[in-house]
Formats: sequence, structure tokens, C-alpha cells
Amino acid sequence: MSDQYAITGGHVLAPDFEVREADVLVDRAAGTVVEVGDVTAEETLDASDSLVMPGLVNAHTHVAMTLLRGHADDKPLDAWLEEDIWPVEAELTPEDIRIGTELGLLEFIKNGITGFADSYFEVGEIAAATEASGLRANLCHAFITIGKDDEAARADAQEGLEVAREFDHTANGRITTALMPHSLTTAETDYLEEFVPQARESDIPLHFHANETENEVGPIVAEHGVRPLEYADDLGMLTEDDFLAHCVHIDETELELLAARGASVIHCPASNMKLASGIAPIQQLLDAGVNVGLGTDGAASNNDLDLFDEIRDAAMIGKLARGDARDVAAEDAVRMATEGSAKAIGLPVGRLEAGGTADLVVVDFDAPHLTPVHDYVSHLAYAVRGADVRHTICDGQQLMVDREVQTLDEQAIKQQASEAAAGLIERAG
Amino acid sequence: MSDQYAITGGHVLAPDFEVREADVLVDRAAGTVVEVGDVTAEETLDASDSLVMPGLVNAHTHVAMTLLRGHADDKPLDAWLEEDIWPVEAELTPEDIRIGTELGLLEFIKNGITGFADSYFEVGEIAAATEASGLRANLCHAFITIGKDDEAARADAQEGLEVAREFDHTANGRITTALMPHSLTTAETDYLEEFVPQARESDIPLHFHANETENEVGPIVAEHGVRPLEYADDLGMLTEDDFLAHCVHIDETELELLAARGASVIHCPASNMKLASGIAPIQQLLDAGVNVGLGTDGAASNNDLDLFDEIRDAAMIGKLARGDARDVAAEDAVRMATEGSAKAIGLPVGRLEAGGTADLVVVDFDAPHLTPVHDYVSHLAYAVRGADVRHTICDGQQLMVDREVQTLDEQAIKQQASEAAAGLIERAG
Repeated sequence: MSDQYAITGGHVLAPDFEVREADVLVDRAAGTVVEVGDVTAEETLDASDSLVMPGLVNAHTHVAMTLLRGHADDKPLDAWLEEDIWPVEAELTPEDIRIGTELGLLEFIKNGITGFADSYFEVGEIAAATEASGLRANLCHAFITIGKDDEAARADAQEGLEVAREFDHTANGRITTALMPHSLTTAETDYLEEFVPQARESDIPLHFHANETENEVGPIVAEHGVRPLEYADDLGMLTEDDFLAHCVHIDETELELLAARGASVIHCPASNMKLASGIAPIQQLLDAGVNVGLGTDGAASNNDLDLFDEIRDAAMIGKLARGDARDVAAEDAVRMATEGSAKAIGLPVGRLEAGGTADLVVVDFDAPHLTPVHDYVSHLAYAVRGADVRHTICDGQQLMVDREVQTLDEQAIKQQASEAAAGLIERAG
Repeated sequence: MSDQYAITGGHVLAPDFEVREADVLVDRAAGTVVEVGDVTAEETLDASDSLVMPGLVNAHTHVAMTLLRGHADDKPLDAWLEEDIWPVEAELTPEDIRIGTELGLLEFIKNGITGFADSYFEVGEIAAATEASGLRANLCHAFITIGKDDEAARADAQEGLEVAREFDHTANGRITTALMPHSLTTAETDYLEEFVPQARESDIPLHFHANETENEVGPIVAEHGVRPLEYADDLGMLTEDDFLAHCVHIDETELELLAARGASVIHCPASNMKLASGIAPIQQLLDAGVNVGLGTDGAASNNDLDLFDEIRDAAMIGKLARGDARDVAAEDAVRMATEGSAKAIGLPVGRLEAGGTADLVVVDFDAPHLTPVHDYVSHLAYAVRGADVRHTICDGQQLMVDREVQTLDEQAIKQQASEAAAGLIERAG
């Protein structure tokens, strides 16, 4: 019995989005929900005035970029990358990546994010920090071939493939991987043709940036005579296992292609606003049956890692997109951040039900800004923030209890991150 | 000396948006900042790892609508008002208004809002709750004449005027008032011609909804042959004292008219997104020299009362509006929520400086999502939330200390509000 504990006294959000009073029995060793209902256990976790729901899944991020949070704002994507981000990233040491990752994971846990999909470099550091944090993740090394000679290009793609193979199914299965061609314009055709099939042989999905800005569309159309996602489809990159970040600038043909092939779209509304990339056609994607997940993108273009913001942002700009207040309703937005993201990045989570994985969060509704409660799901979409999360559980383990993170040293990480960031900016001049 | 206390150990945000280490000496009786610098006092308020800044001013809200928070979402403005909001509002008792107001004021204080402009009805209840809370406000009774016979229409306008006269300069000067014709389409010309001059005689400004949706533009153009703000200008409604909520659908002529006459615009980005009203041309207004403030609008179309959200939303959708990431930069967004709002609604606040009013908040920067600090102002715009506010001070009085509200009973208000909301929905059927 000591491997079990009960989350008691609260309400639960069922997979059908009905909310009812129930306790949740968790098996710590198995990492599963044993029962949802009227249960008892010696060990309990209080959920009075709270809602127990699936942990949020941040389906597109660059977690180590927390060190660059607020370093540069209010600039368009290309100038921001070239003038502010890349010069600093060039100075990042493996130690910086480790510290930045730990800071991001700390923020994830505090905000009720239990799983994520990351793409960056020095993935060994990111994997080690993820394993220690207790979180679940899909990780990858983003490879870029453009502007490199063939040897360097092939080496980067090869590293992407090797990293994916090395870390897949590590950390007791909590870490899986993807192959990430950085984007359709920065990873060239020859390398896609060579490496994508190798990922397929190893059962490794693809994760890539797609159609984030108009600048990613024109060059593909000019070179290949088709839209970017038609080009990706020709290369076999839109399977049910694959997930595409952004998809802001897609046309009707590409939307239908996504629906037909089964690839998922990761919507990053905050990043798309902040970099003025535009609004992705999310309601149209949902209507077409495309699976949509949500991501924060990196902290440098957000500037925090609170997926409740993205839920709210998705619902909010979803209505602006075509001027219809019915679009991207509360339930759809919450589902994107849970089941949608989980399905997209291949994590066995996102639904709270007996027999399912115990990746759960307990959200405190006893707050002025969540009073009264006419509708729990409305509050999750429009009023709950990461700071309202009381407990965070991943794979049955309690990662945060009453806002105290159990697996990471909050004070030490904040201090190390501040020091690392200061050193980084100094080195980057 | 006992009337003075020092806020010590933190950084301060100066009116020029420079941030530096400094203490702040406050005179409680005078409600003023005595000195910013290296000060001592027997009584201190800790600001370690924190930023002391002007209190936020929520320049357009309907505070009692907290009771309807999350009651109905994902519907366009007209259907939402007619089907969901008005039927419930018809059941509101003065007691409901009082409780809803207290809940909203509690949320304001917790989120660092020290001043606000409200428009609703039963203003006596709102004024009493405001006085007890210690906050500063501009209040008004919104009058509607359309669909009423002349007697009822005149009575409503008269009530608007009398309420404005009755509560102006009450609560030791913390409460001022406005005359509020609900909007240019719901308050008719005859009544505007009769009552606006009477407000001027009493030195009472105008606060009204303007050009929120396209539906408010067409009828004016059809009836008067000019754009709504040209019509308002003909009626003398765009003086430097007046403030117009929304202004989403304004054309170049109206923008120039606002700049020429000096009226302020209150931007409500969350409400404009949630009701799919559109995006107001904020960067163009700023470029033209129009003063812009920020408002949450009512909690029913937001769904919370956290003005830090509006700062972030303003910066975010400001970039979407014309696809330029440089638009509505962090500093401009923060200034709108402080000095911009204060100037708009006529409160003598919004700048932290010696000799100025002591309407201040202390924001805790010792949190993972605010680490590292490359730029305080960037964090204020993109990462700080209401929950990061430690202390809230209005008119020199400490309304919240270390997140404990001093002037209102948080537990009692939450419980009363939940009960009142349940009763209200039951009565509204």
C-alpha cells in the first residue's frame, strides 16, 4: 500500500471534460492512476477547493533559452535572431545549457507542465537535467545545413540522428526523441532525403519548424514550385508521428494535406504574436480534424513558460483570426494543452482516467480571481495561471507539493541562472 | 516620524523608466512619497529582490461583474449581452453589486491595481465598497436612453448626472466621477445635448464606450452622415478631460480628431479579443500623440482583473495589428497601465517620484519565471503577473502586505461572492 497515495477532496476533469467530485488513487511505482472515485489510502495529497486535471504538455520549446529571457524584445524574427539571439547562443557553454534547462524545468513544474518537447543543442545536458527533474520529454538536436559545407552539414544532421537514437527511451522511458531538421528552409533537400528515412527506420518521429513566417514560404515556392507542406509531404515528413511547430502561414491545400496525412500542428500563439509572425488558422485546423498541441516556444520570445497563458492566448487570438468569438472555445483550448499536445509529441499522457498515466496537476480554485466558479473549464482557459497550480505529479512522482518543488533546488537554480546569464552577456559583448 | 515608513532594499522604476537601487520614504498621513533615495525610517516595508513602481490604474472596468466571471464565454458581443449578461444583470440586487464589487476590489489589490475607472449602476454600493477598500477611483452611472420613453430616458441620464455630482471628491478625495453616456448609439443625441453641458458646468469629465465594434459605427454614419467620433466632437465630447473606452474601429480622421482635441483612449485588449471586436490601432494612436490608458473591462469578458495581462496583451496584439514586432514596445505598454491610465481618468498618480502621490506597488522579482533579470521593464510587460505583487499601497496606506490584504476580508468575500453568484444564476433561471 505504501506505493499508493490518494489525491482527495477535490474535483476532477474527466477526458470528456465533465467535472465532478472525486478522489484519485495513484500508484507511485507503476506511475499510473489506479482509480478515480471514492478511494482511501494512508498517504494523501489534499485537493480541497481544487481541480485535479491532466498535467499540461508544452509541445514546442527551447528550454535552455530561459537564460535569454528578456534579453531582447520588440524586434522582428530575423533581426532578433541575427542581432540578439545567435550572437549570445554562440557563447553558450554546456554548463549554461544545463543551468538554463534546470531553470526552465523548475518553471515548468511550478506552472503545472509535466511533459514537453524540446529542440536545441547539447542535448546530453538537457536529457540529464530532465531525468533529474522527474519530467517527461521528447528531446532533439536541431540540425541546420544551410550555409555549411557538406561535411559540416552532414555532421550536424548525423548528430541529430545519433542524439535521437542515444536518448530514445531513456530515463525509465520518460525521455523519447525526435529528429529535427530545424526548418524546411534551413535543412536542405539532400539531407532531408538522406536522414529522414533513417529516423523512420529507428521509429523516431520528426519535429520541425514549419511556415512560421512568410519568409519560410517564398523560398520553397520559388525553388520547388509547391507550397512548403507539399514539399514536406513529397519527402514523407507529414506522418501521424510527426509534429510541426507554428504553421502560421499555411494555405487550404496544406491544411488538407495535414488532415489527410495525420501530422500534428503545435500552436505557439505568444511567440507568434511577440515576433509578429501572425495568427495560425487553428479553428480551421480543428474543423479539418488536424490534431493541435500548444507550445510556449522559447522563453526569449514569450517571455515565460506558463502554458496556461498559451491556452488563454490560443482562445483569445483564435477569435481575432476571423472575427468570430465562437472560435477556439475554452474546452478546445484546454484540450490542445493536454491531450492534443500529448498525442502530438507521442507522450502517453493527457487524460485523467483509471489505468492511465499519473501525470497530473492539482489547481487551486480558492482565489479571488477564480471566484465564483460557474464553469471550471472556462476558468482553466481564461483565468487560471501557472501560479495557481498547487501540486505537480509526473509518472506518479510528486514533483511539487504545495508549491514546493521536490526534485530541484529552486534557490540554487535561480542564483546559478542569474550568474550564468550575466556571464553570458558579458562574454557576448 | 510615525506617519512615515520606508520601502527598503529594492529597485525603483522612475518616471523616465530608468531602474535603480533606491528606498522610498512614504508619508502615510499626506499620502505622498517624501523621498526616493537612501532613506531611513523606524517602520519599513521590505522590497528585497523587488521593484517598487507606480500602482497600476485600470482605466475601464465594470467591477461588480466579477459575479458573472465565466458565466458565458465564446460568444459574440451582441448575443452574449442579450442572451447571457443582461438577463442575469436584471436580477442583480444592490447587495449583489456590493459583493461583486468587493470581490473585484480584492482582486485589484492582489494584482497591484491601486486606481480604476468604473461604470455600472447602483454606484452608491460601489462607492461605499471603494471607500472601505482604500482604493482610488473614478466612478459613474452608465445611462442608456435608447428603447425608453422620454421620461425614463431623462431619468436615467439625470441619475447619471446626480451620481456624478454626489460622489465627486468623496472618500477624502480618492473618489471622483464621470458622466457616462453608455455609448454613442445607446445614449441619443437629445440627451447628450442636454446633459453633457451640465457635466461640464460641474467640471465632471465624460467616460463612454466608443467604436468598440463595427455595429457602433454604421448606425451613426447612417443617421448623422459622419463617423462616430466626428459626431461626438460636434457634441463637445472629446475634451482633454474625457476618456473613451475601446476605439477599435476608428479611421484616420477620428484618430486625428482625438489627437487634436486631447481626449484619451482606453485600450481593453483582452475584452476586444474575447468578444472578437478586433484590434485597436494603438501604435498609430501613440504616434499621433494620443494619450492611451489600459483597462480590463468587466471580468465577464476577460475573465480576470489582472492589468499585467492587459500590458502583455497590449504589447502582443499591438505587434499583430500591422505585423510589426517593434510596435507597442514593452515600455509603452507599461506606461499605458500607469501614467497613461492615470492621466486618462484624472487621477493624480502613475509616477513614482518625490512629492508625488504614494500609490505604489512592490513586485517580487525573486521567482523562476522572472530569472534572470536582463531588463526589469521587459519583465513587467512580458512575464510579471498580478500574483507577483507583494505589497500594494494607495494614498500612502498599505492595502496589501506580503500578499495579505489589510482592508478587506478575503475569505469572507470569496464565500459571500460564491453564494451571491449561485443565487443570482438560480434567480435568472
